[in-house]
Order: sequence, then structure tokens, then C-alpha cells
Amino acid sequence: MSSCLFCSIAAGEIPCQEIHADDEILAFADIDPQAPTHILVIPRRHIGGLNDLESSDTELLGRMLLRARAIAAERGLTGPGYRFVINSGDEGGQTVGHLHLHLLGGRQMQWPPG
Amino acid sequence: MSSCLFCSIAAGEIPCQEIHADDEILAFADIDPQAPTHILVIPRRHIGGLNDLESSDTELLGRMLLRARAIAAERGLTGPGYRFVINSGDEGGQTVGHLHLHLLGGRQMQWPPG
Repeated sequence: MSSCLFCSIAAGEIPCQEIHADDEILAFADIDPQAPTHILVIPRRHIGGLNDLESSDTELLGRMLLRARAIAAERGLTGPGYRFVINSGDEGGQTVGHLHLHLLGGRQMQWPPG
Repeated sequence: MSSCLFCSIAAGEIPCQEIHADDEILAFADIDPQAPTHILVIPRRHIGGLNDLESSDTELLGRMLLRARAIAAERGLTGPGYRFVINSGDEGGQTVGHLHLHLLGGRQMQWPPG
């Protein structure tokens, strides 16, 4: 078993409520949802977080966002709206050391964003 | 003058506290900051929001995030942490109809993210 929670989920070693899976990207429901729709979009490859991205990850990053947007559309959120959040480090609120994008929607999101 | 606030800023018609500018991407301080560092990263080209992105924008999206990450690093936020937020639509909290990424840091960000 991987020492990284999200690597273990990507490997199928820990179950998740899967929303999307391809060779590069996985999306699954957050286990502690903060909105009616709260989905995490991650790269299968272990990337610790935003600080660990290389310029060669430019397209991967773009595809992660477009995948999250596609999931928002599938959930009927295009019209009402939704929010993307990526946390880095302790003050950013990152709690798992594997890059992940939060897609939140289904309620009025507030300001400030945490 | 453009009818889009951020197009007007990108065109230099409305002043901003500029953080970064290149042919493709502009970054400037949010006029209503929600954290000690609160910077907006936008494409110069008018894109209404996440819903308006095309697959041909994949690399642009990735570059926007890597630019925001570089700015976070310049501000000394790599260690303590920071948060990226992109809002779409009313429930997402989007208030300007031109795609923009919020970079927030310099304080403990809370959960939920709004």
C-alpha cells in the first residue's frame, strides 16, 4: 500500500466514490463534503502539490481544470455556478500531500473563500 | 473603453497595481483583498469564465496556474502556503465576467472555502 492516501485510491487499494477515471486523471467524491457537490480531481501520478509542479505539467494542469469543468457541466452546475479551489501548504489548508483540485457547487458559495 | 472591466485593465484604460504582465497573462492586486496577498491572474484575451474555455485553451490554463504559483513563490508563500480559487457563475461567486484566478495567502485560510 502506498504511503500516499490519494496514490492508494488511484491504485484501487482504498475505495472511493469514483466520478471519472482515465489514464491520467481521477475524480472522486470528497469524503467530508462542504457542498452538495464536492469532488476532488487528481493526477494519477504522484505530485505533492502546486509547489512540485514542473513546466512539463502545464498541459496536465489544464486538462485537470477542463475535466473538473466537464464534471460541473454533467452535474448541471454550468448555469447556477461552481467554484474550483486548490490548496497548497498548511496556511492554504492542504491536508493531503497529493495535488488535488476541489470542485464545489450546489449551494451559494460565500466570500471570502475561507 | 471596453465594456469588460478586466479587458479595460488589460488594455491599460483602467489602472491596476500590476504584479506581472506578458503577452498572454496579466496579474494585479485585487482591489478588495481578502488576505494579505490577494492577486488576480487573468488571460489578456477575453474569456468569460470557466464555462467559455475551449480545449485549445488547455495550455493557457496551465500557464495561468504556473504563473500564479510563481507569484506565490516570489511573495514567500511556498513554505507557509496559499490557495487558488476560480469562481464560475452566481453561486460560485463570480462577479466579473472575465476568467480570473484568485491567489490568496499570508494568513491561515479557513475551511470550508466559502
